[in-house]
Parts: sequence; structure tokens; C-alpha cells
Amino acid sequence: MSGHLAVVGLGPGGARYFTPEADAALAAAEALYGYGPYLDRVPERAGQRRHASDNREERARAVAALRDAAAGTRVAVVSGGDPGVFAMAAAVCEQIEAGPESWRALDLVIVPGITAMLAVAARIGAPLGHDFCALSLSDNLKPWELVEQRLDAAASAGFVMALYNPVSRARPWQFGAAIERLRRHLPGATPVVFGRAVGRPDEQISITTLGAADATGADMATLIIVGSRATRVVQRPGRAPLVYTPRAIAEVSA
Amino acid sequence: MSGHLAVVGLGPGGARYFTPEADAALAAAEALYGYGPYLDRVPERAGQRRHASDNREERARAVAALRDAAAGTRVAVVSGGDPGVFAMAAAVCEQIEAGPESWRALDLVIVPGITAMLAVAARIGAPLGHDFCALSLSDNLKPWELVEQRLDAAASAGFVMALYNPVSRARPWQFGAAIERLRRHLPGATPVVFGRAVGRPDEQISITTLGAADATGADMATLIIVGSRATRVVQRPGRAPLVYTPRAIAEVSA
Repeated sequence: MSGHLAVVGLGPGGARYFTPEADAALAAAEALYGYGPYLDRVPERAGQRRHASDNREERARAVAALRDAAAGTRVAVVSGGDPGVFAMAAAVCEQIEAGPESWRALDLVIVPGITAMLAVAARIGAPLGHDFCALSLSDNLKPWELVEQRLDAAASAGFVMALYNPVSRARPWQFGAAIERLRRHLPGATPVVFGRAVGRPDEQISITTLGAADATGADMATLIIVGSRATRVVQRPGRAPLVYTPRAIAEVSA
Repeated sequence: MSGHLAVVGLGPGGARYFTPEADAALAAAEALYGYGPYLDRVPERAGQRRHASDNREERARAVAALRDAAAGTRVAVVSGGDPGVFAMAAAVCEQIEAGPESWRALDLVIVPGITAMLAVAARIGAPLGHDFCALSLSDNLKPWELVEQRLDAAASAGFVMALYNPVSRARPWQFGAAIERLRRHLPGATPVVFGRAVGRPDEQISITTLGAADATGADMATLIIVGSRATRVVQRPGRAPLVYTPRAIAEVSA
């Protein structure tokens, strides 16, 4: 008996993004661990324990879940979006590496989910239709200089960018600084998409440009997509514009 | 009556990745368009027309689907993985921009899916746990020099890389050249994951290093993840190793 731990991606927002694999993993669990609002999305099942924690408690949540699994419980850790993208899968792997040898013997299963950038992109067209990168703007876990280096590299090389964790109460200026930084590399007309609470009833998707982007328009629940020089906006009478990045790129950017 | 076109992501492999939103879009369609092997994954429904085409026929498929939708048919175009990642959503947007004004009036819905990099990452740990990029190695639609520029930029800036479309019959040398290129920037010990046919019965996932990576190990159905300097491998007795990229990065790379 080596214990079982599943790290389950719920996708953004409601149950329409739950995969059958995620449903099955949640149904089989004896104990669920997760950030409270994510746990609230999971249907209640008799006999299942629930351990809600704050969203800054990823390390403690991973340790508690691993201990429970190592004691023989069938455990599921839930994650919004995809657990492998700035979320719980890496936190669990970190603790398995740092923890007792017995945690390496656990049956670990990671169930992928729709990550926010894919859901926001789908709402607006196909802004990630060509090469792109996903970058967290949080400098809690890396120096801000590294964020700037990566913004420079991605913008210069023509990657579309999906920006996660743009802002929080403790990090009020970072997203504004990132926008300023990107303006050094990209034209003011570059399309920018703000996707807030995607997949939830209060979802808000808006299109602007790098020149006009207002950093106060983002909060913790916002995912921002910044286009490349190739990204296009297609106006549609009576409908929201489409934003997409063509599959073909003819010239090499400087 | 303006017509309805859904572009539906099936995820990789079988039905375990179909979201409820994808199921509903497929069930509601009167006509399905797609690459044959993707259409074969969709359950047959009475009265539904099916239009299979070759995987190099994306433009012609998009045009045919748009014409059908504009004529009043409820159409679904199916895509493996996520339609927004190197797939049909951009092809459809391109044709809407280039085509008759009436196509802009269509009710276009894009249904996201689990893209291959998320599924491969989930199988192996959390290699995409920190900043990463997704890059197509196909030079059918962009010059090879641009691929090289992007490999250089991503590796130098410390992004983990998910490499799509590594090789095909018409592009036999590109993946080998990419591996050579990356060796200029990253240590030989950098973890590399080959994920072939992820989610299918013939799935094969293997871990190697950049120094030992053999370009002949990839085919059209392979997704490759190349780690950064921060990516780690955790050995587990009796189990496959875990590959993950920590959430915290202390130092700024040169």
C-alpha cells in the first residue's frame, strides 16, 4: 500500500471544462485539498473529506496532501486551470523531492486541465495561433530583473505572450512596469487582450492596444495576452472583433 | 439566419479529454469537418454529415466549413488538442479575414481543448511549472532563420520549451538542427522529454538529456519538452522519474 495522490486540473470557471478524467479522479478521492474557491467548484460527495486553504499556502497544502496520501488515503489536490501551469503540480513535485523517501513511492497522477490562456484565446479568436510564451509576472518567487529579461526576449523574438499573475495586493506596480517594458519593443498598435474571470458568470474579455492598455484594468483573476507584430484584429459588424496570429510569417523580424 | 461555426478542441488521444463544452458542440452540429483521424474520435450521430480531409488541407477545410456555415448549416470543425495552438482556429480566422463580408457575420465559437504540451507535462511531472514557450519547428510557414532566432531567445532567457511539429516526411532535418542549436545555450544535462501519441493506446513518454537526445526519436506525433537550467529530475525507486521546473528561481541567468 503506497498511497495515491492525484493533482487535478479543473480548468477555468465552471464544470463545462471538467474532463472525464478529472471527474473520475475527483469521484475516486477520499480527501480533497485545494484553495477554497476551487474546492467549491467540485460537487459534494458523501464520505469525502475537504481541506480548504488559502491561495498562498501552496507548499503547506502540498505537504498536508502528501502526508495524507502516504498514510494510505486516496487524495486529490485540485487546481484551477491546468495544475502544470503556475500551479499545484510543481509545488507537489518540489515537496516530493524535498520530503521523505516514502513520498517518492506514492502513485502520483497529474490530470491536465484547460489553462486560462487557452480559454481566453478561444473567446477572442486565435491570438496564440503561432509561437507564444507563458510568463508569470509574480516576483514573489523570482527577481523582477528576470521577468524583465524574459519580457525583452519574448517581445524581441516575436513570441505572443500570455501573462499570468499580473497583479496582487502585495504586487501593485509589476503589471504597469511590464506594459512599459513591452512598449520599448512593440508598436503601440499591438493588440492586447484582457481576460478576467474567464469561464465564470462574471467573465469580462476586452481588447485594447499596447499603447492604450491601462494597467489598472487587471486584477488577480486576469490573464493578459499581448500580441506580436504579426497579430491581427478583424472587425465584425455587430460582433466582437476577432484577434488572431496567422500561422504563416514571411519575414524575419529584426 | 447568420450561420454557426464551432471550432472544437478534442484534446490529445481519446475521449477522456473531451470537455462537456466540446461534447455539446459536437452533438449540436449538422456537419463535421476535420482531419480524418480526428473525426474518427468523434462518436457517430445519425443525420450528421462528415467531411474528412488531409492534415495539410487546413485552408481548404476552413473555406469549405465557412461556406457550409454561411449557407445556414450548423458546422463544427474538429481539431486535435487545442484549436488555438498551431491548429484550426487561426486557419478559420485567416479565411474570415480574407473571405466575403458575410463570413464576418457568422456566429463563431471556439471550444478550447487540452493541448499536447499540457498532457505530456502531466505524464511526467511539471516541466512547464515555470515560464515556458510553445514553438512550432515547421518551416513550411515561416523561415528557418526565425525558428533559430526563437530557439536562441527562449533558451537564453531561461524559458522551458515545448516543441510542436518537430519533423515530417518533407522536413527531415529540422528537429536535429534545433537540438544542435539548443546545445549552444544549454548544458548537456538539461532534461528533455519526448511525448509520442500522448493519450492514445500507443503512447510513449521518455526522458533523456539535451546531450543524449536523438533526433530520430521524434515523428509527426511527438511533442518535445526541453527544460531550462532550473528543470530538475527526481528519481523514484520502482517508478518513472519526475521532471519538474520549480516555481522559485533565485538567481538571474546571464
